Amino acid sequence: MLPRLALVPGEPAGIGPELCVRLAQQPRTDCTLLAFADPATLISAAATLGLPLQLIHEDAVAKLPGDLRVRPVPNASPATFGHTDPRNARAVIEALTKAAGACLTGELDGLVTGPVHKAAINAGGIAYTGTTELLAEHAGRPVVMMLANEIVRVALVTTHLPLREVPDAITATTLEEALRITHAALRGDFGIPHPVIAVLGLNPHAGEAGHLGREEIDVIEPVLRTLRAAGMDLVGPLPADTAFLPQKLRSVDAVVAMYHDQGLPVLKYSGFEQAVNLTLGLPYPRVAVDHGTALELAGKGTADPSSLFAAVATCARIATIRRAHRAA
Amino acid sequence: MLPRLALVPGEPAGIGPELCVRLAQQPRTDCTLLAFADPATLISAAATLGLPLQLIHEDAVAKLPGDLRVRPVPNASPATFGHTDPRNARAVIEALTKAAGACLTGELDGLVTGPVHKAAINAGGIAYTGTTELLAEHAGRPVVMMLANEIVRVALVTTHLPLREVPDAITATTLEEALRITHAALRGDFGIPHPVIAVLGLNPHAGEAGHLGREEIDVIEPVLRTLRAAGMDLVGPLPADTAFLPQKLRSVDAVVAMYHDQGLPVLKYSGFEQAVNLTLGLPYPRVAVDHGTALELAGKGTADPSSLFAAVATCARIATIRRAHRAA
Repeated sequence: MLPRLALVPGEPAGIGPELCVRLAQQPRTDCTLLAFADPATLISAAATLGLPLQLIHEDAVAKLPGDLRVRPVPNASPATFGHTDPRNARAVIEALTKAAGACLTGELDGLVTGPVHKAAINAGGIAYTGTTELLAEHAGRPVVMMLANEIVRVALVTTHLPLREVPDAITATTLEEALRITHAALRGDFGIPHPVIAVLGLNPHAGEAGHLGREEIDVIEPVLRTLRAAGMDLVGPLPADTAFLPQKLRSVDAVVAMYHDQGLPVLKYSGFEQAVNLTLGLPYPRVAVDHGTALELAGKGTADPSSLFAAVATCARIATIRRAHRAA
Repeated sequence: MLPRLALVPGEPAGIGPELCVRLAQQPRTDCTLLAFADPATLISAAATLGLPLQLIHEDAVAKLPGDLRVRPVPNASPATFGHTDPRNARAVIEALTKAAGACLTGELDGLVTGPVHKAAINAGGIAYTGTTELLAEHAGRPVVMMLANEIVRVALVTTHLPLREVPDAITATTLEEALRITHAALRGDFGIPHPVIAVLGLNPHAGEAGHLGREEIDVIEPVLRTLRAAGMDLVGPLPADTAFLPQKLRSVDAVVAMYHDQGLPVLKYSGFEQAVNLTLGLPYPRVAVDHGTALELAGKGTADPSSLFAAVATCARIATIRRAHRAA
């Protein structure tokens, strides 16, 4: 049986629905998809693009271009492309939690999500900092956010924090947890038996032997020693500016960055369109697009679906590997 | 008359001397070079590489491959490639300050420097944080460090600071000064009449309207408003992760990053070998290589001279532009 993936379009006023319509045009041999979505929004997106779309019952089988299995999660208000509506915030979150719930029970094998609009959700009266954080809380698990393209995988120890709060958020506990989760995912989800992980320093030049900050000496290096003793192949702490040189990236399976703007610029520069956002550490694979809602493009039919296509393919691959592990 | 550039090899035990020997093999039509260096070290580097080298008097003219005009700055101790010697720290600094002095008096038109070894200089009992900082103090001017390759120019508001100290170092004064210096250099040194500058935020997502930090609202945006009113074309504050997307870089003349590891990874990823390090704001152009002393390569003849060649070409070009401005 193919892996069964949940598909959540995200913000109904953004490009998520039309990307799902484009996705439904593709024949799939690696997974089946079940959309948790507002049917009217998907139909409206298909009409805007002039593409076929048949929303079929979840017990049916997608056969034709445009067939998409749906478990309806109705919006409170009809979506208008380009204009978020706080009344639909609840449906956006409900689609995510229902899909995640189906993955937690084992009914489905993985979760693929489109872009959500943080401000629209908050405007709808729902406290929300990010889907990664929401899914971590929902599953009761610590997670790691990883962004990946063909060139590099980057995992982050801290994600959406003011820069001022980053140094104190890098503790032996948080760092060790992030490295353990990343290492386990490279083995279990990416099928790399002995992963090599480059770990960046916190400070410029990785602190330059204490001249430019002591966190490498006081926090990072002790954790690396502990985990090396436990068998992990960890390189670092490395200066962030030279750790991403192409010849260095070729010799590592992932880069663990201490914070958002240290790790993500090269990832996005080197291949934004195909990049995906993974949540490591959940009981199921979750892969998201690596772009926003692009409200200004919504309904125009010009949005690039590459990241969603890559997210589905990546999630299907990981779900297949996980199933093989369980069977072994 | 061609621009007259000072050439300082930097750390005598590193790859700087052999890169200068390689440079001396090239015919030059854009500048004349005067090395401030220890003659014995250059001769030793040439012998190691099996390349011709004739150190000629500074009143002579370089005609043959290997001709190099020299103003001797003798080392205290013979250099051994691969092994720094604190006794030579003073000569390293003396070469820099003599060359800079000749530029300040107008005897020479620009300064090109090889890599120095910070720890070796400090071990020699000389307080030193970086050549950029040394030249700023020597000239009594605030400066900005810019790294540039064929893809992008990145200027930094803060350079070699522990990450923890960065947020408080970004003030209206330091930011405005950095932007004014960068803008003036893009006009005066790069010949761009109306430069467009992308300014990054300090926090992830450029603070996301205050949800991820307030420095954009409290510090950065007011400075941008002031300088826009003064006629500068400034874009931002931008999220650092997407500001470096290739299509965005094509529409700006420089990116101003708030700190080291935010600005430099993409620059080094996208073209490390040809990258150069410029000091903006000095009374003369100064261009350095964008790499270290590479002690492990010194004397092997395998070090890539591309960055030094690019540094000389860049410095010659800027010196020519500055002279044209003065003549106008």
